[in-house]
Amino acid sequence: MAYRAPVADYRFLFDHVVGLEAVRDTARYAEATPDLTDAILAEAGRLCDEVLAPLQRAGDLHPARLENGVVRTSPGFAEGYRAIAEGGWIGMAARPEAGGMGLPMTIATAVNEMMAGACLSLQLNPLMSQGQIEALENHADAKMQALYLPKLISGVWCGTMNLTEPQAGSDVGALRTRAEPNDDGSYAITGQKIYITWGDNDFSENVCHLVLARLPDAAPGTRGISLFMVPKYLPDADGNPGGANSLRVVSLEHKLGMHGSPTAVMEYDGATGWLVGAPHKGMAAMFTMMNNARLGVGMQGVGVAEAALQHAVAYALDRRQGRTPIEGGRGTIIDHPDVRRTLIAMRAEVFAARAIGLACAAAIDMAHATGEDDWQARAALLTPIAKAHGTDIGIEVAQAGIQVHGGMGFIEETGAAQFLRDVRVTAIYEGTNGIQAMDLVGRKMMDGGEAAFRLLEEIEKQAEAARARFPQMAGATWAAAETLREATELLISQDMTDRFAGAVPFLRAFARVLGAHYHLRAAMAEDTAGKRTELARFFIKRILPEHASLLAQLREGAAGLYALAPEDLSA
Amino acid sequence: MAYRAPVADYRFLFDHVVGLEAVRDTARYAEATPDLTDAILAEAGRLCDEVLAPLQRAGDLHPARLENGVVRTSPGFAEGYRAIAEGGWIGMAARPEAGGMGLPMTIATAVNEMMAGACLSLQLNPLMSQGQIEALENHADAKMQALYLPKLISGVWCGTMNLTEPQAGSDVGALRTRAEPNDDGSYAITGQKIYITWGDNDFSENVCHLVLARLPDAAPGTRGISLFMVPKYLPDADGNPGGANSLRVVSLEHKLGMHGSPTAVMEYDGATGWLVGAPHKGMAAMFTMMNNARLGVGMQGVGVAEAALQHAVAYALDRRQGRTPIEGGRGTIIDHPDVRRTLIAMRAEVFAARAIGLACAAAIDMAHATGEDDWQARAALLTPIAKAHGTDIGIEVAQAGIQVHGGMGFIEETGAAQFLRDVRVTAIYEGTNGIQAMDLVGRKMMDGGEAAFRLLEEIEKQAEAARARFPQMAGATWAAAETLREATELLISQDMTDRFAGAVPFLRAFARVLGAHYHLRAAMAEDTAGKRTELARFFIKRILPEHASLLAQLREGAAGLYALAPEDLSA
Repeated sequence: MAYRAPVADYRFLFDHVVGLEAVRDTARYAEATPDLTDAILAEAGRLCDEVLAPLQRAGDLHPARLENGVVRTSPGFAEGYRAIAEGGWIGMAARPEAGGMGLPMTIATAVNEMMAGACLSLQLNPLMSQGQIEALENHADAKMQALYLPKLISGVWCGTMNLTEPQAGSDVGALRTRAEPNDDGSYAITGQKIYITWGDNDFSENVCHLVLARLPDAAPGTRGISLFMVPKYLPDADGNPGGANSLRVVSLEHKLGMHGSPTAVMEYDGATGWLVGAPHKGMAAMFTMMNNARLGVGMQGVGVAEAALQHAVAYALDRRQGRTPIEGGRGTIIDHPDVRRTLIAMRAEVFAARAIGLACAAAIDMAHATGEDDWQARAALLTPIAKAHGTDIGIEVAQAGIQVHGGMGFIEETGAAQFLRDVRVTAIYEGTNGIQAMDLVGRKMMDGGEAAFRLLEEIEKQAEAARARFPQMAGATWAAAETLREATELLISQDMTDRFAGAVPFLRAFARVLGAHYHLRAAMAEDTAGKRTELARFFIKRILPEHASLLAQLREGAAGLYALAPEDLSA
Repeated sequence: MAYRAPVADYRFLFDHVVGLEAVRDTARYAEATPDLTDAILAEAGRLCDEVLAPLQRAGDLHPARLENGVVRTSPGFAEGYRAIAEGGWIGMAARPEAGGMGLPMTIATAVNEMMAGACLSLQLNPLMSQGQIEALENHADAKMQALYLPKLISGVWCGTMNLTEPQAGSDVGALRTRAEPNDDGSYAITGQKIYITWGDNDFSENVCHLVLARLPDAAPGTRGISLFMVPKYLPDADGNPGGANSLRVVSLEHKLGMHGSPTAVMEYDGATGWLVGAPHKGMAAMFTMMNNARLGVGMQGVGVAEAALQHAVAYALDRRQGRTPIEGGRGTIIDHPDVRRTLIAMRAEVFAARAIGLACAAAIDMAHATGEDDWQARAALLTPIAKAHGTDIGIEVAQAGIQVHGGMGFIEETGAAQFLRDVRVTAIYEGTNGIQAMDLVGRKMMDGGEAAFRLLEEIEKQAEAARARFPQMAGATWAAAETLREATELLISQDMTDRFAGAVPFLRAFARVLGAHYHLRAAMAEDTAGKRTELARFFIKRILPEHASLLAQLREGAAGLYALAPEDLSA
């Protein structure tokens, strides 16, 4: 069945739920008018439906492979990439000076989600370039910007991020790759990097690696890390790709999914690189890149969930099995209560996770446009939630999609299983979801919970406003927000070990309350109770209550965990 | 890392949690002494650790394949199968008269779980034969029993179940395969069957297919279905495999996992078969076979969960990453609160799901040994819970195992992903978990909830007895049982559509309460609070509370589901 980009849902979310209007009211984004937004959504939707979605299976069946040191990409990927690049979609949010569209992240995030739903393996390539573009915009000097940004934005060159080493995954500070100064201001980079997404390809003229490494005088840990630009081909005097750099793809990983996206082990053997930003300040630069990449990965989860849901709905509309209880219904399995419940839950989850991601993007836009700390803090707070929850929902919806297919779900030809195999990594890369939760309860609560409390106030205020029209839904949302506030107060009083012990349940509980909030806002936007109101009712009555048991876990802290020795975990 | 069969956990469960003592006190199972049980667990454990576990990866990497109409099995599977057969493990629970061991299902279920944990794809083969043995013991005439049972029990022949057709999956009554009487009392079977597990192999002398088909005068639906024995090779006068029957493997499915287990499309082209049981009574015979197969599949989920947990613990004990908060700890990721929490949750879930499955097996034994209806009803009530919950936990624990591995979890070489790919089907075959839940709230509540209420009374009584020693745990378990009782009363008053709408959450809530019950019993069995008590505390404080939000879903009924039209499910 054919994927259809969820353009209508985005229009509704922009207009009624996530506040794109406020973004448009700023001077910076005044050009993102409703007409332009509509045109962009329509055009991006066409690209996704017609060009990218047909590549999704090919990427799975014909994985990228390494031939004589060169990566050969899946059939059709080169053409798909070209269509993305030529449409200007890589540089959607980049500065117009270097050829970008300068669009709000809110819109770029929507388009990224659509592309991910259409073909996750391929979409991951421009997502990496986008992160690199942003890092260069914020940290590179003018000369490097002038050389690299136009090529990256136009898609003639691609960008990658090189953080991980075998002993340095979540603990980036343990990395060992060395950078020795050359005479000409460049550096010689030596080391091995693993899990390098799109470490090479056969459709861009150059591949620009941003590599974390240590200078000779570096301090241990994260404070001694610097960031380098290490291109596959060294630019000549005119900025065109010249001689090959001393780097190579050692091997590609054999993965559960995302077969169309080559994941490389990279070897740097005195490769020439240039410092990006100040020495020893690589982590700060990397964090710029990672924060937006984290939102982007969260939306990958949402995008795959959308695709898996559409796939399951199409199957359930078609498949006949047993007598259904609905007079005048279709008589296909979509009319069975358990299947219907499953599909509605999937839709309600997709809506909530999408709204959370877009609200995060809107906060990023407002922070950029206004420079206000409150917006910055809102974006920082929502980022780990958008990443972890969006990807969790991606996995859960893909799982449910398999289940709706029954026996066919286990057969690869159906395509239902690919969604799960592909999306599974999104809960792991760009910081595992456990790391995201630790970020939420640690770094993002360094303000004493101020940003969280401010958001909870808004949630309660909206619930108050909705009370006359939707007393039950508003009451439940208000009460859940209040429970979350109390839990957050407790959290702030806990030490880090206790916080970390409850971090994952806390993040999910927060996402439940946010989901109810955005669903309620959607219901309020309908003049008379319709589809949005029914979805909100479903979410608030059946899914929101989970927050209570999640927060019970937070209250337990860490003590019980260490009462059991590791040996006690064997049977 | 090497799988170790959880022998110690089984000893503890037998002695303290699931009442194997009561089973041994019956005349039928008096020979299953503690010494014999110990010897069996030890011997089965050795088989699993040394012979079967080493085959698990090979089955994944070298799938069974079809060559010139013949199935070639994965490397080592023939030897593994022979070891299972020669150990007598296929006929563990079968009648001694035909060569079986006559062991209680409780013990056979434990051994089946161990074998599933060691090598799921291969274990599925004897599981199918066991179902066939039971069906023949209960429904075949003496002549058929004499011919087939010794061969199946010794493993010289294998058995399969043929239910599904393209249009007839969960709705078995829609099947079309025809059986025309021949002159000699046999029948000519014609039709196509799909999803036939272990439809062929290259290590047994014959493959015996139990096939559901319709006689010429059959009523439509499930009341017109008869069961036939259709062997691959027709037995000659001496009962040895003779001429080939008119049946063939058309193709094997390309599946998400379980690559070592060939899933066949079977074509019967006037194949010779013999009626098993009375005409048109095939469903009853099939249900005998399916009920125990359902418990067996539930334990497959538990077995894979055990294996995935062991695999994750080994990784977490070894992998260093970041500073851990524990003074004098190992310094590996097992000391990080979120990893520790995840691993303990996995262990607590495995224990609970295993206890539910064994309690179901013990009820089956008591029903066999005493003939009492109450035990029969208990077994019938627990079967769908053991199946659905055991397999859900299998999937969830395998997911968590991947997450513990971080990036390595997505790389196939690690093996973490195979557990998820393999176990995924267990929530689908032998009746999807949605069908199990419908069975629980439908057929299994035809007694007005009597069997459920009787079980809940036992749970509350035990909680009362535990109150003095463990006031919090006992109080929480009692209160949850009471909430479940009220929900069950509501359920009984609902019509079937409302029941089905809440069936899946209800089943899971029931499993939560049962899990708390068995964990509490385990804690009570410790003289001083130790590992079992800590695990119980974890489960009851952090996992049990989920029952409340699950039961909230039950109360919503079906009305809200049909307020949304199928079109409303698109974005």
